[in-house]
Amino acid sequence: MGDEEVKLLGVWASPFSKRAEIALKIKGISYEYGEEDLSNKSPELLKYNPFHNKVPVLIHNGKPICESLVILEYIDETWKSGPSILPKDPHARAMARFWAKFMDDKCYPDIWKIGGSQGEEEQEKAVKEAKEHLVTLENELEGKKFFGGDEIGLVDITANFVALWLVVVLEMVGIKLLTKDEFPRLDAWIDNYLSNSIVQETLPARADLLAFCRSVFQQSN
Amino acid sequence: MGDEEVKLLGVWASPFSKRAEIALKIKGISYEYGEEDLSNKSPELLKYNPFHNKVPVLIHNGKPICESLVILEYIDETWKSGPSILPKDPHARAMARFWAKFMDDKCYPDIWKIGGSQGEEEQEKAVKEAKEHLVTLENELEGKKFFGGDEIGLVDITANFVALWLVVVLEMVGIKLLTKDEFPRLDAWIDNYLSNSIVQETLPARADLLAFCRSVFQQSN
Repeated sequence: MGDEEVKLLGVWASPFSKRAEIALKIKGISYEYGEEDLSNKSPELLKYNPFHNKVPVLIHNGKPICESLVILEYIDETWKSGPSILPKDPHARAMARFWAKFMDDKCYPDIWKIGGSQGEEEQEKAVKEAKEHLVTLENELEGKKFFGGDEIGLVDITANFVALWLVVVLEMVGIKLLTKDEFPRLDAWIDNYLSNSIVQETLPARADLLAFCRSVFQQSN
Repeated sequence: MGDEEVKLLGVWASPFSKRAEIALKIKGISYEYGEEDLSNKSPELLKYNPFHNKVPVLIHNGKPICESLVILEYIDETWKSGPSILPKDPHARAMARFWAKFMDDKCYPDIWKIGGSQGEEEQEKAVKEAKEHLVTLENELEGKKFFGGDEIGLVDITANFVALWLVVVLEMVGIKLLTKDEFPRLDAWIDNYLSNSIVQETLPARADLLAFCRSVFQQSN
């Protein structure tokens, strides 16, 4: 596969971009990386993702693939050597897709609201909603090291914003939500996930992300 | 596969339930159907979809699968005989998944708003947004009979709410939006899709759906 051209357009602080990077690295795929400035999007981004103009975009031999979950499935189906990102069994695959969708449709928006909420009442509401989702995830981790079982899989990669972005947002707003006492499995999962060498080298440094989140939420508040 | 137990929990007027039914029929799978009353959900629905309590739920040999797009992929991966719902090529699969997600994330909410909008200004805005999506779909159909190519595939099944529900909502509010002049490919696609014998026998009668939509939107207005 030496003639392949693999390029990823991403943003360093985006949990969605980082999903694609982690999946490519798990598969051992060499790729070129193009950092996007979302306030001044590259012609390449506008060309390859004309409908959403969003990162990440994976460009494989000139063909673009957009939407991070679609990219993760594409990577798994295209490079079959290397560890699997989705399980093989159809029901287990369906469950992985269900949980990945749950992360994006429910957890991510509600967790992000904690940072963007205005005033105490709105923040309390956001924290309450996020907490309900975290309880669901805590239950889902029963008896498992990763959401994917013994190894990192689709749901873990999708949940990277819980492992780092949520933790940073909670630090920013000064709320203790993800405590070891209340969420022992999620706490262990975060440790296990962040200890993975690929995850470690790919996710942004916590201090950088905290500074970034502060600037984003200060602008919007 | 004579010993298999396949049951679908659905609602007759739900485009999401109908997706699962159409896919099962395309594959030629016998299944039991349980009609749900969403104002009085069955213990089976609450048991098998505890996170969302939503239809459709596919129960295959006692194991539930939730979320219509997840169900469609499950059906395609589980019953490999019969026509394919997703294409085989990884890039074509990614594109099908991209468009299915576009239908659910963009088209469906904006189209549904046309029925639920309050007042002329809100309705005009909803129509304008829906129209932008329809232009995108019109372009996507260039040179193709179905979104899936020559045969009905994942995107067509996902788009069933454009073929029938949108048409009914437009009739209800008295707006001519999907005209043959402006959207010749979408118009032809609707004809082709609704002429398919499986689709025809599965989707609700237009008059029944119109009466249903009238009752739903009158209640909410």
